[in-house]
Amino acid sequence: MPKTGFLLIVSGPSGAGKGTICKKLIESNPKIKVSVSATTRMPRVGEVDGTNYFFLSKGQFESMIDQDEFLEYARVYDNYYGTPQKYVIENLKMGNDVLLEIDIAGALQIKKKFPEGIFIFILPPSMEELKSRIVGRGTESEADIERRFGCAIEEISHFNKYDYAVINDDLTRALADIDAIIKAEGCRVKRVYDEVKSRF
Amino acid sequence: MPKTGFLLIVSGPSGAGKGTICKKLIESNPKIKVSVSATTRMPRVGEVDGTNYFFLSKGQFESMIDQDEFLEYARVYDNYYGTPQKYVIENLKMGNDVLLEIDIAGALQIKKKFPEGIFIFILPPSMEELKSRIVGRGTESEADIERRFGCAIEEISHFNKYDYAVINDDLTRALADIDAIIKAEGCRVKRVYDEVKSRF
Repeated sequence: MPKTGFLLIVSGPSGAGKGTICKKLIESNPKIKVSVSATTRMPRVGEVDGTNYFFLSKGQFESMIDQDEFLEYARVYDNYYGTPQKYVIENLKMGNDVLLEIDIAGALQIKKKFPEGIFIFILPPSMEELKSRIVGRGTESEADIERRFGCAIEEISHFNKYDYAVINDDLTRALADIDAIIKAEGCRVKRVYDEVKSRF
Repeated sequence: MPKTGFLLIVSGPSGAGKGTICKKLIESNPKIKVSVSATTRMPRVGEVDGTNYFFLSKGQFESMIDQDEFLEYARVYDNYYGTPQKYVIENLKMGNDVLLEIDIAGALQIKKKFPEGIFIFILPPSMEELKSRIVGRGTESEADIERRFGCAIEEISHFNKYDYAVINDDLTRALADIDAIIKAEGCRVKRVYDEVKSRF
């Protein structure tokens, strides 16, 4: 039986660079699978069921809520979004690590249901750099930028609810930190307990 | 002010290879300093005060005990052995990591006084390999080997009091694990809390 994989929960404010980090992590590590969310919203052109999302009816989604089949879920306006437990657990049992890029509210729900997850918060290097990254997107009005910046600062205030904080001042270094976190977690006594007990 | 270093506490039974691991760690990482123990035993030929040990009189040692100046200490027959706190704390403040190779009783004393230490237990890959490593030294009688093997098994039973267990089936891999542990610990929220708070 393969060793159970890790559930990696990655959060961070917009501008921290977590999207790029997650993309690179997946590219460089074939053992990392991305969790597929479920939603009741309509598929957009090109979206594939089971790849981009599991597209469910409202009835299906609510029945899964009733059966406690989500690691976390939220209702956003008229649609549900959630992380089905089954896909995650199946992959962990196969020995894959599962990566879940999620907002703080979702991460905190998961922490309650799955405390053995590895909770990583990605931080921008500084306030100034955060602001310049948000401005740098160049697609938003001054008011939007201020709102996004305010949201980011609010989000950052929750970093201490995570296990690890990775400061993304350099992508290569941040990725090396996360690789080290995964390797080190593989040596944590609580994770190797059964294996050691079986050897001695 | 440099970032405070880590106190690395390394234990493991005879035959686990912790001596080699510690030697390699120090060689490859100039930031790691080895803790210097204090003792009341006589210096042997070639031993240098402050390098191999701090050689103290019994009165000096007992006065340091009274002043709570040891991270841990023990009396072995007629002599004291201990880890003076001052040397460790000074180095940590300078930003060095301090490595302490110590038995389980000592490690558990330190855990009480310095819970922010990183406690790493080195394990041999299997019972068979442990026995063959102990036998392989070739210097001991059958009875000595049995006694050492029994001690090792007893020591291993305490591995779960540590933070990490590193299985030394391959020296390069074991060293990479410890490097990852050091790097990952540098990202733990409790260790970067002040730094993040100062940035945001």
